Amino acid sequence: MSKPPISRFPIPEIADLPEDIRSRILTVQEKSGFVPNVFLVLARRPDEFRAFFAYHDALMDKPGNLTKAEREMIVVATSNANQCQYCVIAHGAILRIRAKNPQIADQVAINYRKADITPRQRAMLDFAMKVALEAHTVGDADISGLSAHGFSEEDVWDIAAIAAFFAMSNRLANVSNMRPNDEFYMLGRVEKQV
Amino acid sequence: MSKPPISRFPIPEIADLPEDIRSRILTVQEKSGFVPNVFLVLARRPDEFRAFFAYHDALMDKPGNLTKAEREMIVVATSNANQCQYCVIAHGAILRIRAKNPQIADQVAINYRKADITPRQRAMLDFAMKVALEAHTVGDADISGLSAHGFSEEDVWDIAAIAAFFAMSNRLANVSNMRPNDEFYMLGRVEKQV
Amino acid sequence: MSKPPISRFPIPEIADLPEDIRSRILTVQEKSGFVPNVFLVLARRPDEFRAFFAYHDALMDKPGNLTKAEREMIVVATSNANQCQYCVIAHGAILRIRAKNPQIADQVAINYRKADITPRQRAMLDFAMKVALEAHTVGDADISGLSAHGFSEEDVWDIAAIAAFFAMSNRLANVSNMRPNDEFYMLGRVEKQV
Amino acid sequence: MSKPPISRFPIPEIADLPEDIRSRILTVQEKSGFVPNVFLVLARRPDEFRAFFAYHDALMDKPGNLTKAEREMIVVATSNANQCQYCVIAHGAILRIRAKNPQIADQVAINYRKADITPRQRAMLDFAMKVALEAHTVGDADISGLSAHGFSEEDVWDIAAIAAFFAMSNRLANVSNMRPNDEFYMLGRVEKQV
Amino acid sequence: MSKPPISRFPIPEIADLPEDIRSRILTVQEKSGFVPNVFLVLARRPDEFRAFFAYHDALMDKPGNLTKAEREMIVVATSNANQCQYCVIAHGAILRIRAKNPQIADQVAINYRKADITPRQRAMLDFAMKVALEAHTVGDADISGLSAHGFSEEDVWDIAAIAAFFAMSNRLANVSNMRPNDEFYMLGRVEKQV
Amino acid sequence: MSKPPISRFPIPEIADLPEDIRSRILTVQEKSGFVPNVFLVLARRPDEFRAFFAYHDALMDKPGNLTKAEREMIVVATSNANQCQYCVIAHGAILRIRAKNPQIADQVAINYRKADITPRQRAMLDFAMKVALEAHTVGDADISGLSAHGFSEEDVWDIAAIAAFFAMSNRLANVSNMRPNDEFYMLGRVEKQV
Repeated sequence: MSKPPISRFPIPEIADLPEDIRSRILTVQEKSGFVPNVFLVLARRPDEFRAFFAYHDALMDKPGNLTKAEREMIVVATSNANQCQYCVIAHGAILRIRAKNPQIADQVAINYRKADITPRQRAMLDFAMKVALEAHTVGDADISGLSAHGFSEEDVWDIAAIAAFFAMSNRLANVSNMRPNDEFYMLGRVEKQV
Repeated sequence: MSKPPISRFPIPEIADLPEDIRSRILTVQEKSGFVPNVFLVLARRPDEFRAFFAYHDALMDKPGNLTKAEREMIVVATSNANQCQYCVIAHGAILRIRAKNPQIADQVAINYRKADITPRQRAMLDFAMKVALEAHTVGDADISGLSAHGFSEEDVWDIAAIAAFFAMSNRLANVSNMRPNDEFYMLGRVEKQV
Repeated sequence: MSKPPISRFPIPEIADLPEDIRSRILTVQEKSGFVPNVFLVLARRPDEFRAFFAYHDALMDKPGNLTKAEREMIVVATSNANQCQYCVIAHGAILRIRAKNPQIADQVAINYRKADITPRQRAMLDFAMKVALEAHTVGDADISGLSAHGFSEEDVWDIAAIAAFFAMSNRLANVSNMRPNDEFYMLGRVEKQV
Repeated sequence: MSKPPISRFPIPEIADLPEDIRSRILTVQEKSGFVPNVFLVLARRPDEFRAFFAYHDALMDKPGNLTKAEREMIVVATSNANQCQYCVIAHGAILRIRAKNPQIADQVAINYRKADITPRQRAMLDFAMKVALEAHTVGDADISGLSAHGFSEEDVWDIAAIAAFFAMSNRLANVSNMRPNDEFYMLGRVEKQV
Repeated sequence: MSKPPISRFPIPEIADLPEDIRSRILTVQEKSGFVPNVFLVLARRPDEFRAFFAYHDALMDKPGNLTKAEREMIVVATSNANQCQYCVIAHGAILRIRAKNPQIADQVAINYRKADITPRQRAMLDFAMKVALEAHTVGDADISGLSAHGFSEEDVWDIAAIAAFFAMSNRLANVSNMRPNDEFYMLGRVEKQV
Repeated sequence: MSKPPISRFPIPEIADLPEDIRSRILTVQEKSGFVPNVFLVLARRPDEFRAFFAYHDALMDKPGNLTKAEREMIVVATSNANQCQYCVIAHGAILRIRAKNPQIADQVAINYRKADITPRQRAMLDFAMKVALEAHTVGDADISGLSAHGFSEEDVWDIAAIAAFFAMSNRLANVSNMRPNDEFYMLGRVEKQV
């Protein structure tokens, strides 16, 4: 069958986009070799696009105690709980690359409790899942539990904010039928590619 | 008892904040007569602050078919489903003011199915709640159901994006113990105040 | 729009009611300045009316260690969990008055874990919510947990019975579309009114 | 092992009870050959006892279109959903007797969708379960669905009120560890006993 | 009304069945005095029949530390959680017989937390219910909790495997509308019958 | 870190196994190039091993209208709902090979509603998920819905039985911490391997 569209909403032409957005998309394309569909799906709303990626970068690229792979673990675990195809497949690829581990994304997505992760990462994901699924019950004991694993106050914020940001992102992707690019499926699965 | 803190995380001094953030906060204060705590709680992370409010404004202040009151209805209904005290109380106040209706916020928060709203607004909130609670099941029938009530493709995006943004915002507020300002409780409750 | 009816079921004329019921309603009206709709909605079934209010008074007005405000906290927290508009709005008003605190009802309704309450009250509400939502799992550990906060056996019964009674009341109100009186929205919100 | 107590709360001596309560208990004992434990467990709170049984009788013994067996079906189905041992076993016995059917109680308790009941009774139980489990979603379509099966407005009230009353009763029994009398297990199971 | 069919799927003639299946059915009939419907419903698929009963026997009849009554408790508790009429009624009968206790099956089915069982059996059923309802969260703490009650590694496997096997069996019975035989209802209820 | 064990239970030596089991394992190894861990984990219980694989083969290898790829879709979708790492990863590999589609397994696992499948396959998976998650609500309308998509009575049985069998299998794998073999992760991902 012919390939399904990448969104239930219309996709703008890249040439018609505001300069800053077009430029960001072309930079990504140059770096990755393709344009992840999230850029195209969100580009129809330039202001939302700018805010989304500014927020994303502030959480995923900032310095801090969480490794980049750990941040992606949070995305992958919570996104499968939310049944978000785009987020699990796209960020699963990034997680494999960041962790230099071709198995980690599938493990964390399906059942992070059985994944090859450290006890500290397990505590991080337990908390992230609580934020994703029942943030209203988070209390002091959760924070001190993280502290016992060496997580600082800043780390707690980071874990929570990443889980919260993808709570939003998962919903946008599910409503828009955002389709993962073909390229993501194999990224980071063959060790030499990493 | 002494008043509890407005966040479990430290709050920066307004004087120490980057100029743009300080300026935004002072403008809000001037307009509203007080600084809603969400500004102070998020200010410790300037980049996240900027992205959060840019996103918020893009969704809540942009032109479109949804009235400002209707957008606030989405916030209030989904935020009570997520048990977010700050969001229900702060946006409940805004909803009362926008709708010029002192009862609407409590009604929509507790059980929007029993609120004094139109069938079109009921359909809007049914969809917003589905996005908030089980976005993975959203399908074509939901979109055509909204269309039957006169909602355009842009409106569908708006409803979904507002529900998604507050899925994030509710989680941030619940994890940080974000405390609603005293001022919100009475805003819009007395008709002449509107 | 014209005001919606206060019930999906017909409402009897007060003049046609049995004397004891009519008298109770007139007494309430005299004391409160209006007739709370629950009296009118239930009056069509005189025997059920009598039993309902006898039960209500036995639980809410009897002497005991729980303050009247604490009993109302149980009503407000469990009624929002059951999405009962009448009960949250009507008993929210009573709670504000009993507690002489204009903020407490909204806080307890939306997320009692974030409300300005004592640890003892938090334990009381944790238990009440368990009774409301999963009474089949209540066990000895719950009782001894309450005991550690100074609750006696009689208090445990009171908490459970109030949560149980409003499990019934919430369902009656939700099925009948029981509408909160306009008066409840503002009661207890302005301190001097208390 | 020695027989467990019939409640986690103390049971008063029948001789010490107020005259009306003692009399009601003795009447039941005479008629049934034993005192169902719910009478003894609730008797420690005379006012609540009186209200509880007045309410119960108003719903279960009043004239109306629902047969007595149908009322018991509502009790049995919703009480198993609430995992209430006392209510399922005691009212299961009454249901077997009222329906003159030794199998009906077990069928209705475990999965009423598979029970030997009429389509009208199936609709009644679907509605009763909705009242028991998610009354906040009950709407006009539910009422007209019942109407299509011949249920009047009074019948709708009866079904809802019975489900609501046992929402309370189930919680009281689960918190108090109310123990079913031995006699209930066999009542109505042997056809000639009926 | 005429008796409903024992399955929504056609039932083969016993005479037409493969010899081994026919023989097994006749043996059961001879021993029990009737053919439990599960044999007839599954016989239409001989290979599945053989595998099902081989698995069943391997779990329920093998030697081990769990008594036969305890194995049936696992079946009855988890099958009521899955609302499986056939399994609760048929295995409830077997449980009554194995335990020589006419009350135990109803107690364990409705709310095993209130049943007349030992703390060791309570721990066994807590674990079995976790396997039935959320096996993905089972972890080392569950295993060591069982160990503290004297359960060996083999026992843990047995409990889990029985709960897992009936997770399958309950689904087959619910989809096929498998009807419990009339005989099961009374088996083991009268002590002398045991 | 060293590789975690493939089960929380001890694994027997292949040389010590009964001849039929050893032979089956060696045959699989010869055909696949490795021994899927499920064979080793279950081998400690020879009778259960034999029944498990006899059942598996009866459902997955028998002739019928469901293609082998469709049967694997049922396994993959329901196993992710049950968060079973072994089943999603192992059967995901088989699904990719059977369907000659390197993307289909990830799509079906994460959110089958967004997968590149036919409407008939969507109906099949909707039903399979209902069997996996709430088989007690399956009714005639589900069967006739499948019939409208061309599924025969035999097909309905097949779908239900596969979903039921993996309800068991998922629980066994989750309790035993069954670890997917490294080989599964890449199988069927590169088209020429198919």
